Amino acid sequence: MSSSPVPVNRQIVLASRPTGRLTTSHFAIVDEAIPEPAPGQLLVRNILLSIDPANRAWMQAATYRDRLEAGQVIDAFTLGEVIGQRNTNVAIGAVVECLHGGWQEYAVVDAEEVRVIDVVAPLQHHMGCLGITGLTAYFGLDRIAKVKCGETLVVSAAAGATGHIVGQLAKLAGARVVGVTGSDNKNRFLCEKLGFDAAVNHHSADLKAELDAACPSGIDVYFDNVGGPLLETILRHMNVAGRVACCGVVSQYDSDSPAPGPRGVPGLLITKRLRMEGFLLTDYHDEWHAASSVLADHVTAGRITPVEAPVDGLQHAPQALLDLLAGRNLGKVMVRVADDPKPTGGQT
Amino acid sequence: MSSSPVPVNRQIVLASRPTGRLTTSHFAIVDEAIPEPAPGQLLVRNILLSIDPANRAWMQAATYRDRLEAGQVIDAFTLGEVIGQRNTNVAIGAVVECLHGGWQEYAVVDAEEVRVIDVVAPLQHHMGCLGITGLTAYFGLDRIAKVKCGETLVVSAAAGATGHIVGQLAKLAGARVVGVTGSDNKNRFLCEKLGFDAAVNHHSADLKAELDAACPSGIDVYFDNVGGPLLETILRHMNVAGRVACCGVVSQYDSDSPAPGPRGVPGLLITKRLRMEGFLLTDYHDEWHAASSVLADHVTAGRITPVEAPVDGLQHAPQALLDLLAGRNLGKVMVRVADDPKPTGGQT
Repeated sequence: MSSSPVPVNRQIVLASRPTGRLTTSHFAIVDEAIPEPAPGQLLVRNILLSIDPANRAWMQAATYRDRLEAGQVIDAFTLGEVIGQRNTNVAIGAVVECLHGGWQEYAVVDAEEVRVIDVVAPLQHHMGCLGITGLTAYFGLDRIAKVKCGETLVVSAAAGATGHIVGQLAKLAGARVVGVTGSDNKNRFLCEKLGFDAAVNHHSADLKAELDAACPSGIDVYFDNVGGPLLETILRHMNVAGRVACCGVVSQYDSDSPAPGPRGVPGLLITKRLRMEGFLLTDYHDEWHAASSVLADHVTAGRITPVEAPVDGLQHAPQALLDLLAGRNLGKVMVRVADDPKPTGGQT
Repeated sequence: MSSSPVPVNRQIVLASRPTGRLTTSHFAIVDEAIPEPAPGQLLVRNILLSIDPANRAWMQAATYRDRLEAGQVIDAFTLGEVIGQRNTNVAIGAVVECLHGGWQEYAVVDAEEVRVIDVVAPLQHHMGCLGITGLTAYFGLDRIAKVKCGETLVVSAAAGATGHIVGQLAKLAGARVVGVTGSDNKNRFLCEKLGFDAAVNHHSADLKAELDAACPSGIDVYFDNVGGPLLETILRHMNVAGRVACCGVVSQYDSDSPAPGPRGVPGLLITKRLRMEGFLLTDYHDEWHAASSVLADHVTAGRITPVEAPVDGLQHAPQALLDLLAGRNLGKVMVRVADDPKPTGGQT
């Protein structure tokens, strides 16, 4: 009580690298000094942290970034407000997307690495349906899956951040849309609230029969967010000239030893002339803004219902990630670290 | 000696369906009457039988044709001469490709199912580099792999019927070409006689190091004829935006229980944005003639060296197939049942 507390940057770091299943004990909270931006850098006050399966994947191995090591701040995509900068063109008060803002209250990032966003909606939309996961759905469908009207599309993790947008976009394209989740409650939600034609529980005792019933004309497109045994099952149900858009392998992230791939690769790919193709959203960076505008129009017009569930408080980020990996989420999971800025806009 | 022998149609049938490794005991020779064509059908005297991994696959399960059952003539692609017909437009003496002429001396086939070929070379070329396997190489490269100059292409079963044409076509496209076989002798042949840049033995104790050495800039295209563990290894060596043309899974045909697929599917497909795509030559049927002309030009000009090894005698077909499945072949394997027709052309 003798003096004001010194402001700190609360962070969540990786206490130790998981070798098996991830638990909260792999995380630690530390308080560090608020960092200073170097020339060309910004100081950003984080507002929303994105919780993604990729947070787990980054602990496992080098992917499109180096592996996360013990002691490092958990890497994450964030939205935040610029509160400091040195020798950049970014205005104080601007809202920026940071690919690597991390699980912390303040981040210093290179100005080159952020994207200033034109705020047209509550920031949770910019993190969800208008952000990374909505854009992933958009480009995965538009560039890889190329679903056509009259075709049947199946999407896994269908109630998840990307999946629930995939399904709604595919409906707009005129496809029959079938979701796969691990929960009957989620499936009811997809069909009753989001307009999916059918949904199947992958825990079903007779998954094949349920897929047959849900997809009477077979499967033309599989938007795969999970990999694993479900991919093997789906491949057997696919029609000639079908496409698999490989978007994620959430079934494999929480493990130190990836399972063997699906039987049927490459045999079924040949007999059915299937195409499997992976993609990363970052490859379409120059087109994000245009695609985000398309998605914003859909949301504004009520053609897409975004499902977003912010969790309040940085300290809850580890549990939010564990819940996501366990399939307990509905829609886009994010953690709120601070309130949205007042809508009066930024000042310099 | 009392009368001329009645002409018969000697056939090789499946004596019993193999449940494990195929042996000569799974085959039997039978003599049947020479069949009569019904209206719309041709009677064809088989000249060359194509020996393909698909002969084995057809015994295993329904693919793009029904499964072959015990008692049935071994199905095979053949070249033969039309010696009878009823109510068709096909001339007696025409040389025809039959997708399902079978392991027999005479075949009755629907006129709709054959392709009359314009004989511009010894028939063994029409069965090899200008036929099914040459065309498979052509369309797999042109439509699926799309190898570009300066890229590195790896082809498995590289000394095989399709592989040795793939490598030579990819060299013509300006690629670095690396073959994979199971034999140092084959590898020397590929590099010394066919112009491959390098070749690797998949039995090598350090396959990864050998691939690294042979592919210093990584692998952009993998033309996969074998599937199995090699596919898993190659995926790890592929460059971002690489392509896998899935052409065959010879490693899996001689078994009743396909092995799990490669680790890395779909994880590596995502992080490296890889595309895997299967194809069947039959989908390009309307373009065979044009592609065959391109290949004939390459052969005539000496830009492609076809490797073909006809085995004389129908009775040797089972062993020829076993040799093929065991990797003992070089180039296109075929069995000669009769001599090429005299080059004077057909008469009606």
